[in-house]
Amino acid sequence: MMASAFKTIGLVGRYRDQGTEIIASLKVLLSYLEKHQYKIIFDEETTRELRDHSHAHFPLQELGAHCDLIIVVGGDGSLLNAARYAAPHGTPVLGINRGRLGFLTDIHPDNIEKEVTQVLEGHYIEEARFLLQSSVNIDGQLQVLDTSLNDVVLSPGSNPHMIEFDINIDHQFVCKQRADGLIIATPTGSTAYALSGGGPILHPQLDAIALVPMFPHTLSSRPIVVAGNSHIEILITSNNEYAPKLSCDGHAHVSIPPKGKIIIQKYPHPLRLIHPKHYHYFETLRTKLGWEKHH
Amino acid sequence: MMASAFKTIGLVGRYRDQGTEIIASLKVLLSYLEKHQYKIIFDEETTRELRDHSHAHFPLQELGAHCDLIIVVGGDGSLLNAARYAAPHGTPVLGINRGRLGFLTDIHPDNIEKEVTQVLEGHYIEEARFLLQSSVNIDGQLQVLDTSLNDVVLSPGSNPHMIEFDINIDHQFVCKQRADGLIIATPTGSTAYALSGGGPILHPQLDAIALVPMFPHTLSSRPIVVAGNSHIEILITSNNEYAPKLSCDGHAHVSIPPKGKIIIQKYPHPLRLIHPKHYHYFETLRTKLGWEKHH
Amino acid sequence: MMASAFKTIGLVGRYRDQGTEIIASLKVLLSYLEKHQYKIIFDEETTRELRDHSHAHFPLQELGAHCDLIIVVGGDGSLLNAARYAAPHGTPVLGINRGRLGFLTDIHPDNIEKEVTQVLEGHYIEEARFLLQSSVNIDGQLQVLDTSLNDVVLSPGSNPHMIEFDINIDHQFVCKQRADGLIIATPTGSTAYALSGGGPILHPQLDAIALVPMFPHTLSSRPIVVAGNSHIEILITSNNEYAPKLSCDGHAHVSIPPKGKIIIQKYPHPLRLIHPKHYHYFETLRTKLGWEKHH
Amino acid sequence: MMASAFKTIGLVGRYRDQGTEIIASLKVLLSYLEKHQYKIIFDEETTRELRDHSHAHFPLQELGAHCDLIIVVGGDGSLLNAARYAAPHGTPVLGINRGRLGFLTDIHPDNIEKEVTQVLEGHYIEEARFLLQSSVNIDGQLQVLDTSLNDVVLSPGSNPHMIEFDINIDHQFVCKQRADGLIIATPTGSTAYALSGGGPILHPQLDAIALVPMFPHTLSSRPIVVAGNSHIEILITSNNEYAPKLSCDGHAHVSIPPKGKIIIQKYPHPLRLIHPKHYHYFETLRTKLGWEKHH
Repeated sequence: MMASAFKTIGLVGRYRDQGTEIIASLKVLLSYLEKHQYKIIFDEETTRELRDHSHAHFPLQELGAHCDLIIVVGGDGSLLNAARYAAPHGTPVLGINRGRLGFLTDIHPDNIEKEVTQVLEGHYIEEARFLLQSSVNIDGQLQVLDTSLNDVVLSPGSNPHMIEFDINIDHQFVCKQRADGLIIATPTGSTAYALSGGGPILHPQLDAIALVPMFPHTLSSRPIVVAGNSHIEILITSNNEYAPKLSCDGHAHVSIPPKGKIIIQKYPHPLRLIHPKHYHYFETLRTKLGWEKHH
Repeated sequence: MMASAFKTIGLVGRYRDQGTEIIASLKVLLSYLEKHQYKIIFDEETTRELRDHSHAHFPLQELGAHCDLIIVVGGDGSLLNAARYAAPHGTPVLGINRGRLGFLTDIHPDNIEKEVTQVLEGHYIEEARFLLQSSVNIDGQLQVLDTSLNDVVLSPGSNPHMIEFDINIDHQFVCKQRADGLIIATPTGSTAYALSGGGPILHPQLDAIALVPMFPHTLSSRPIVVAGNSHIEILITSNNEYAPKLSCDGHAHVSIPPKGKIIIQKYPHPLRLIHPKHYHYFETLRTKLGWEKHH
Repeated sequence: MMASAFKTIGLVGRYRDQGTEIIASLKVLLSYLEKHQYKIIFDEETTRELRDHSHAHFPLQELGAHCDLIIVVGGDGSLLNAARYAAPHGTPVLGINRGRLGFLTDIHPDNIEKEVTQVLEGHYIEEARFLLQSSVNIDGQLQVLDTSLNDVVLSPGSNPHMIEFDINIDHQFVCKQRADGLIIATPTGSTAYALSGGGPILHPQLDAIALVPMFPHTLSSRPIVVAGNSHIEILITSNNEYAPKLSCDGHAHVSIPPKGKIIIQKYPHPLRLIHPKHYHYFETLRTKLGWEKHH
Repeated sequence: MMASAFKTIGLVGRYRDQGTEIIASLKVLLSYLEKHQYKIIFDEETTRELRDHSHAHFPLQELGAHCDLIIVVGGDGSLLNAARYAAPHGTPVLGINRGRLGFLTDIHPDNIEKEVTQVLEGHYIEEARFLLQSSVNIDGQLQVLDTSLNDVVLSPGSNPHMIEFDINIDHQFVCKQRADGLIIATPTGSTAYALSGGGPILHPQLDAIALVPMFPHTLSSRPIVVAGNSHIEILITSNNEYAPKLSCDGHAHVSIPPKGKIIIQKYPHPLRLIHPKHYHYFETLRTKLGWEKHH
């Protein structure tokens, strides 16, 4: 076996929906890594769920500082969550799915031993995936929010109703929009929520951000794709009766009152996403979107 | 002047947004009707807003029982609201807009005297527009909800997230859907919220109902149009973490817990909608959707 | 065995693409029908392809006059073709597919004996599906074109370019449209070409016609659904450099020069479409559109 | 007046549709440039249309080699045409519209003198817009086609029917597609034909190419946006009965028989597009797409 660049491995799982399966996969992984004498650390939840105190554990947000590679067992949502915390540390992340292919979790639980071996021996594809950083400016107070690997979503936050906002890009006025909301998606997020909303598929290596209006009142509104280094500003106009909400990858729902401003930009630290050697983006796309079946 | 079939006229306004303009239009209308010796009644809010106690007033839901014609001054939303209460009484409704053409409010405030004269003299177009009646069955308890002239909307009721539901039509299973929600629209509602959601335009005289999925997870989902007398049933599956909400024309937000069932059918009493003689549906459509301007 | 209302059976096949399979299925069917002493007639092509002169044959357009039921072996396209000729005679049509479910051909070749027996014994569902009748008026000369079970398509007829036309419905002007073309679809056709073009799914029992603009220049253009008895008129304006073409179910490509007029109306004789007892429209829909698979 | 970097000016017009207006604008421009002693050259058609032989003229494709700036009077189509010939010479192009704002022709005919002065004095915005270069490989013979500033369109080339093709990007298989065709658009072309086809708006400074399927048979097909330096290959499969056609900016219709291959890549020489100082992309977008009008 080749000397691996990855000596300390952080293990993370998601336990809500399919806990039993995930714990089973984690145990397979654990015994493999122990056998090959890797140093193993856990996030706190994994320590709790596995009831295994023989390995050091850290809060998820610190895990990346203490290991060379994070392996996430779960769905795309689990990887999304771990990725936001791994990116600032520059720690690469590898995903093992729960048996159903994800866009981000490539390794099938049946192939853990074989495929993880390959990755640890240095046979893998590393991709940089950028994240978005959102901040809000409410009454002159700037608040930095979570980062997003997939998307930032502006929504009514309650029963669907029209919200009104102005979009500025690089300090140029783009348009006033009345819509149910707006999705600002990375290429990674372009195949998630934004796709249901009619947004285009952005190749993951494209340095671009998609703005997808949700149920726009103006029927000629269309998704707009701008450069990845764009400075995106959304101003909640004073014509809103209620305060819309902003969420980052489905977390961190912040209310933005009328006259509040949202600033969205590329986050300086990309996610280092690890794929097995056989990974092909378009193959995943075909499988996930059902392009192979002809009716 | 011809003898009018409309002897007692109910007046209704909407005062929230553009109260001053609406009160001005109502006063023009009032003085015209008084001059020509029509009997006038108000809904309670109009009595309050006009501070005029010389005319009888009734709650909006009873107004139709006491008059031959209801005239609404406001936008489409105001007419929608009055229409739900007028339909059970079979009382026709005429709309005067606030200066911007509506789909339902045809008479421009500048033309009140001329156009109302024509209508009262019997020169008008009467259209029957059907409404939807929703009921919910929660734990075996059946609750009848408001009627809708435009639409019934199933939505998460909070931050956008996927909800799961089964659709049955005429007791046949149509599909299991995972989406942000579902719009069930009448032809009247097909040019309102459902249109922003990608639904087709249904001609108002078509006896049909459109089901428009909101951000469906299955990308091959499409709007479905079914016969107006269809029995539509939506079952909230037990896979929902939160209780979605149902609204009727944007009112009456009811939470439907997992296993709750929604039944939607045509309401037996149509709205009798009055238009001036020069009304053409497609002309309104062209103007409202901006089809006339070529860029 | 019950006495069947269907005594003389017309057999029709399509031989272009999958001739061998179709001939195999036809022979199964033939031997079954001969064994049970049905009278069998062929269309001319079937006589030629089967090299079987022991049964009377007729041109496809006359077949319906000489039998009680037409059985088509092939895809939806084959049934479409036979249906146009069967409808004027009021002869019912049953479809056997080539192994892949169609919207119109319900019986799998493996189940021919079992399912055809049921139909011939009177256990079937009969549906009326309406067709469209197109005529064109060029320089005052009226020409009646083919009927369409699926759709009438106006297109440039050559390299894609914008054509300009006016739409009138029931002698009311709807809009001037600049687009690559227009699809006018029946409910039956709403799941064919019109669906790829963004049209809604119309339930087959809905008495309605969908007008779906193809790549409209005006971005707020949307599919419109009108009543089945509408009188639809399309006027090719004089602003067209080339003569667009009109086709009916993909046949009968007629050039319509500038100032030419197209009239489309419901054809008076519906197709009598026969389904096996287990037929459910929505089940076919789910299968054909891949709604069952979740990714 | 400042010394201008632009000493020799090439003038080009389009004479088909609105010849009179264009000739009028050209004469205004000509007299202004003569008065200020610029050297003027014409393309051959302009010499012919103006009947002015006092200035040198060249074929459009050579014009760029002999001047410092090309001014086009006409619509976006005229500029598109001139741009393809100007790009290889690196000669900048400025557009004067026919009275209706274009995406590419910014200067209103009423403001010729004022705005052209500003540009010639060096007050302008220069943008690089990339073009696409298409080649086809038929039976091993490689043929280089025209460049496209807007788009490359694969279409049936006759009555609309499904064509089948494979897409490869950077030598990776993307998908097999059955559709009416495919639009491959630059950011410049994303607001032209591709937009009617449901493609996203790509900001002109984005280094990206959009692939927009036309009426795809697979309903989960979506527009895909890939990096500007992608190597795009389209293989016409042997399942096509007819030879589809390829066009570049609406020109150069080449038939591609089954097994033919199309290769599309960024053209090495960008168009240098000149705008007046007040140019804002999003303002043009709002005006052209009618986002300013609220209904």
